[in-house]
Amino acid sequence: MPQNKIDPWSSIEITDYEHVFEKFGLDRFPDNYKKKLKHIFFERNIIVAHRDFDKVMARISSKKPFINMTGIASSGYLHLGHKVDIDLFIHFKSLGAKNYFAVSDIDAYNSREKIKTMKDAKELAVNNLAHALALGLSEKDCYVQSKKDQRYYEFTFEIAKKITKNMYEAIYGHTDLGKIQAVLLQIADIIHPQLPEYEGKMPSVTGIGLEQDPHAKITRDVARRLSYNIEIPSFIYFKHQSGLQKGKKMSSSEPDTAIFLEDKPDEVKRKLSKAFTGGRDTIDEQKEKGGNPDICKIYEIYRFHHPDSKFVETTYKNCKKGLLMCGDDKQTCINFLNDFLKKHQAKVKEKLPAAKKIIFN
Amino acid sequence: MPQNKIDPWSSIEITDYEHVFEKFGLDRFPDNYKKKLKHIFFERNIIVAHRDFDKVMARISSKKPFINMTGIASSGYLHLGHKVDIDLFIHFKSLGAKNYFAVSDIDAYNSREKIKTMKDAKELAVNNLAHALALGLSEKDCYVQSKKDQRYYEFTFEIAKKITKNMYEAIYGHTDLGKIQAVLLQIADIIHPQLPEYEGKMPSVTGIGLEQDPHAKITRDVARRLSYNIEIPSFIYFKHQSGLQKGKKMSSSEPDTAIFLEDKPDEVKRKLSKAFTGGRDTIDEQKEKGGNPDICKIYEIYRFHHPDSKFVETTYKNCKKGLLMCGDDKQTCINFLNDFLKKHQAKVKEKLPAAKKIIFN
Repeated sequence: MPQNKIDPWSSIEITDYEHVFEKFGLDRFPDNYKKKLKHIFFERNIIVAHRDFDKVMARISSKKPFINMTGIASSGYLHLGHKVDIDLFIHFKSLGAKNYFAVSDIDAYNSREKIKTMKDAKELAVNNLAHALALGLSEKDCYVQSKKDQRYYEFTFEIAKKITKNMYEAIYGHTDLGKIQAVLLQIADIIHPQLPEYEGKMPSVTGIGLEQDPHAKITRDVARRLSYNIEIPSFIYFKHQSGLQKGKKMSSSEPDTAIFLEDKPDEVKRKLSKAFTGGRDTIDEQKEKGGNPDICKIYEIYRFHHPDSKFVETTYKNCKKGLLMCGDDKQTCINFLNDFLKKHQAKVKEKLPAAKKIIFN
Repeated sequence: MPQNKIDPWSSIEITDYEHVFEKFGLDRFPDNYKKKLKHIFFERNIIVAHRDFDKVMARISSKKPFINMTGIASSGYLHLGHKVDIDLFIHFKSLGAKNYFAVSDIDAYNSREKIKTMKDAKELAVNNLAHALALGLSEKDCYVQSKKDQRYYEFTFEIAKKITKNMYEAIYGHTDLGKIQAVLLQIADIIHPQLPEYEGKMPSVTGIGLEQDPHAKITRDVARRLSYNIEIPSFIYFKHQSGLQKGKKMSSSEPDTAIFLEDKPDEVKRKLSKAFTGGRDTIDEQKEKGGNPDICKIYEIYRFHHPDSKFVETTYKNCKKGLLMCGDDKQTCINFLNDFLKKHQAKVKEKLPAAKKIIFN
């Protein structure tokens, strides 16, 4: 059986990553870990690599706690790409983690030109936090940078002393003050849970995209230089869900590249209707040669977000076999997303007052 | 009467400063302000220049509150030079100010190589704070950076966004991360009292040395760029008390250049005995030609610290006239300082538990 040809969880890009892993010094995410971690992101090859994850895996296997840390820099409204971060975080939470989900309002203010005031950053943070709560986080899993305690802030200053100018410039190629502050916060976010005032020394995991590896490296360097007794933080790397158009990334500044968690049904319909599928020019040709799910944006939505692996596999195979037409598939996906978003948006509405209270009280 | 010759409050250095004022864009401190401000530092030409002090003077004249802000980066034990900062601060306090005295432990940690951990910085801060309290500050006049509230820290991040890399490098000539953090804290220290969460918009004054003017300029630039409704902070510039040896500055890293507020009587005696006076080679010559108080380190101690202007003037004149021998003068000064330090050190001992509680609780 030509397995490569009909594996719905393979993709051209993953094989392309191999040389990147080697260059960066990353380890490919092991198959036996994928099986043990029992989540669509592992099953479907969305998590592709890691740095030092073995010690976290050992904690999970022996049912000991570990630190689960991620964050969202609230530069705009959340889209399906952010949902991947949050879904992964929630999965680690279910595996017995100590949870640190950062709503990174100060980071967003410092790193994004378009956010002009801290007040704007905080208003976005309210929205982002409400979405995170609606996706399944509880209030105690989350913190907002601008509401953090003194120890956290003090720690950002301790971190600054451990980063030389040369080390910083080699990684980031700039020394813009606002962006330096954002980096200091990101490093503090990842390491601070291991300070004696929080959990103490404990393996920690943070999921990031491959292009964020420089952050991981500087964070690990700083962790080594600090005088605290801590574990060097571990990272796992996911493949990003791409934009709805061919060759595009999902981007908050180009709303049509992504489905946002606040999109209304007609926006979802409009965006998916014109999404790239890689389908054939005619229905006859599609029936004869089959579709190309490996490059299809609709299939990609299923792969990242549809909970039913059986459904996703069947869709993949039917597409390949020419049994599924792009128009029908898009309609199925529109229904799937709108159904999800309707329920989700109702929960967001419920969570907004709590989010507002957390950030502005 | 050759007034220039026997004015105990003139000095060669002050006239030398004139071109510096012009170059920096500073204003000479006006004589009528000096009279109104009634303190030895004004009377004795220790305050030499200002930036934008008129609006603070207007508040003082109309008995309205103004912000009084200074700080000490606790890089070591305090010496008589630090006492000048604190004495000036206490004088403004007596004029009806809102007081913000920063014990700058995080700043010291970030800017000084020799302070290796925040714990070390905090231990020094306890010592420094106890001295400040013993000199006459009350607990509510002071804050310790590492114990400040969230709003203050958040503000340091807001400031970072208002400083471009070019602006920063033009002033400091480096982009060392730890030192950047120290600068951000210094700017926050000076501006934050005007945030709505503290006093709101209000003229503020900070006393600094001439060499610290770059800090004043960047602080005023940042204040202009922030979106808050605030007064651009004002600065007054003092002449530094010099080191005990000819051509030396007072320096914590060279203990014999300064009298420290913790010095024991025999140390004071030893240091003053070998201090530079500019006296003549022989007693006969001294009697004939008179001494040179304008360059004498003993006279300088009186000028900066002796409360009795009559005594200081008499000492100056007697020295000039050849009526005062350096040995006798040194003994008088040793007695004066040891008397002061004995009382001061007793108060420090009293204040230490409170200082410890503020910083470590």
